[in-house]
Amino acid sequence: MTKVTPYDVEGDVDYDRLITEFGIKKIDDKLLKRIEKIAGEVHPYLRRGIFFAHRDLEKILDAYEKGEKFFLYTGNGPSGPIHIGHYSIWSFTKWLQDKFNVELWFQFTDDEKFLYKNMTYEEIQEWMHKNMIDVIAMGFDPKKTHFLIDTKHASIMYPEAIKVAKKITFSTIKAAFGFTDSNNIGSIFYTAMQTVPAFLPNVLNNKNEYCLIPLGVDQDPHFRISRDVVQKLGHKKPAIIHAKFMSPLTGAAGKSGSTENAKTIFMTDTPKEVKKKVNKYAFSGGKETVEEHRKKGGDVSVDVACQWLKYFEEDDDKLAEIYDKYSKGELLSGEVKAMLIEKLNEILAEIQERRKTAEKKIDDFVYKM
Amino acid sequence: MTKVTPYDVEGDVDYDRLITEFGIKKIDDKLLKRIEKIAGEVHPYLRRGIFFAHRDLEKILDAYEKGEKFFLYTGNGPSGPIHIGHYSIWSFTKWLQDKFNVELWFQFTDDEKFLYKNMTYEEIQEWMHKNMIDVIAMGFDPKKTHFLIDTKHASIMYPEAIKVAKKITFSTIKAAFGFTDSNNIGSIFYTAMQTVPAFLPNVLNNKNEYCLIPLGVDQDPHFRISRDVVQKLGHKKPAIIHAKFMSPLTGAAGKSGSTENAKTIFMTDTPKEVKKKVNKYAFSGGKETVEEHRKKGGDVSVDVACQWLKYFEEDDDKLAEIYDKYSKGELLSGEVKAMLIEKLNEILAEIQERRKTAEKKIDDFVYKM
Repeated sequence: MTKVTPYDVEGDVDYDRLITEFGIKKIDDKLLKRIEKIAGEVHPYLRRGIFFAHRDLEKILDAYEKGEKFFLYTGNGPSGPIHIGHYSIWSFTKWLQDKFNVELWFQFTDDEKFLYKNMTYEEIQEWMHKNMIDVIAMGFDPKKTHFLIDTKHASIMYPEAIKVAKKITFSTIKAAFGFTDSNNIGSIFYTAMQTVPAFLPNVLNNKNEYCLIPLGVDQDPHFRISRDVVQKLGHKKPAIIHAKFMSPLTGAAGKSGSTENAKTIFMTDTPKEVKKKVNKYAFSGGKETVEEHRKKGGDVSVDVACQWLKYFEEDDDKLAEIYDKYSKGELLSGEVKAMLIEKLNEILAEIQERRKTAEKKIDDFVYKM
Repeated sequence: MTKVTPYDVEGDVDYDRLITEFGIKKIDDKLLKRIEKIAGEVHPYLRRGIFFAHRDLEKILDAYEKGEKFFLYTGNGPSGPIHIGHYSIWSFTKWLQDKFNVELWFQFTDDEKFLYKNMTYEEIQEWMHKNMIDVIAMGFDPKKTHFLIDTKHASIMYPEAIKVAKKITFSTIKAAFGFTDSNNIGSIFYTAMQTVPAFLPNVLNNKNEYCLIPLGVDQDPHFRISRDVVQKLGHKKPAIIHAKFMSPLTGAAGKSGSTENAKTIFMTDTPKEVKKKVNKYAFSGGKETVEEHRKKGGDVSVDVACQWLKYFEEDDDKLAEIYDKYSKGELLSGEVKAMLIEKLNEILAEIQERRKTAEKKIDDFVYKM
């Protein structure tokens, strides 16, 4: 049994079934070729089916080819440390920003996390401050990136959110998110706030550009509800590009999360910690003994190191070689883990270098009302 | 069958039953004497049972006698012109402000009206602008009166509203307001916004003063839900003083409203219009013929002119004399109507004089964030 909502991801996710259930479109070869033609390259996450589905991405490309701009919108719910799962979505978002030379509106949903988590308002605010540092350390262009904070920017967001909210009943929310009468009234309203950045930049700048939202597929229900509403309000329907969940280090079903510190890779982990975590917790697709592995080969489809290398080994040939050798037993689990550790530490070194000066840049990123 | 919620007032209201149903306290002689002792006088609306009930008013008086300040909070939902029903609540509020020398926080619930009414956002904003002019024309002290606009001040209100909202479930809202799953999600959240001004001034000024809310009794359900929540958030439970509904000019059950322009007295009505409306529509408690009236007398309890004079004839002896003479048939309906018309036009003349310069003062009243 699969369940995928912004508030619950359970079971082994069948992405083909999700495509049908959610009514989204698979990113096919034709679309990939079109992206390649326009952007000059195709990001590995697209080639490898990590960003696997979309809504109206063609319309974005149509508009872009006609010389029209669009803007990107993604975000973060600040209630814990930033981990490698966040990194994957945002590094792709950065690629989109760089390749298409577009503005990025980055929402911090501090209201959402406060309303849904058993945490104080102050705890959420502290996490938000820390998370902003990590987002800035991703290397987004400060001239083209604007942080929207739901509480801080409420004077520009709430007036738009009520326009969205007026067109959504609780029945709709119940069906999309599995809520009950026991939900708090803030959590019921919240989806309206998440909708706002999909058109707010147009309101603020008196434009009518398309919006493209890169997100984890669990966030789709918000926009499944609100895309029509946004259009009814006179704006363009936002387009979406959906990512699969990065599997947890332990290989368990669900999505990679920050609940178990020891088993998750954080942006602030030292090379030693990364090494220890991967070696200790990364679920292995190898056989029980070296002899058996050499003979029968490993299972790349469940081996987390192999799966994670899809995210961090950019060279297709090299990745194919690793998969091939691992399947044949020529590479041992420990050897693949070592490759992953190296890649992760390269990425983290870069992030951590940028992190040093990131806190001072927060004011430059926060949108000025 | 009586029904009293902020969104529905139906049937003949039995105020004694409301006191029991809502769990509020009647304002008795003992309390009136205490108010007289402290304020130096008792407002006619208190003596005459127009403001008839309360929650924790004694606590306000206790605190005041100890030299502690409190603040007042009332408001307006801008979706139509200001009428004489609004005036009655606000003129009493002004008396409280003057007698106790306290700050008044005046909320404009533009979000509420947008979410509940079949009106555009722009229409609500236009009404709000017009209503502000009338509120200023009431003569509130601009140095001690602060307008809070739900949309404009959302950056200071929404962060507090989510703290309230987190502690209220949809079940509670359903029970208090009679909502269903078909309600829009903004209307479900809204009560949290209405709660905020009951403690926001303390947050903004780092104080912990009592709040006293003069309101029409139909607004009580918002605070019945939220008084405990406010306390749980570390603030003082707001106190409330409840007004009965001013009966409509036509004498029908329910509350005086602005739905039928021809039958309502507005702040902008000319003396001629007032005269025409009262003479034409004010429900008469008189007998069918002058002869019969002279013989049997009129019924003051249903005669709207008599009832309305409770609001506008400040002299107790004079009011008693009018009631006595009308009951005995010595005064005719037309004569009582003429007295009411004179009183109304005196009030409106004063309001309309202040109205001339009120628009320019809006900026002075709107709270500066």
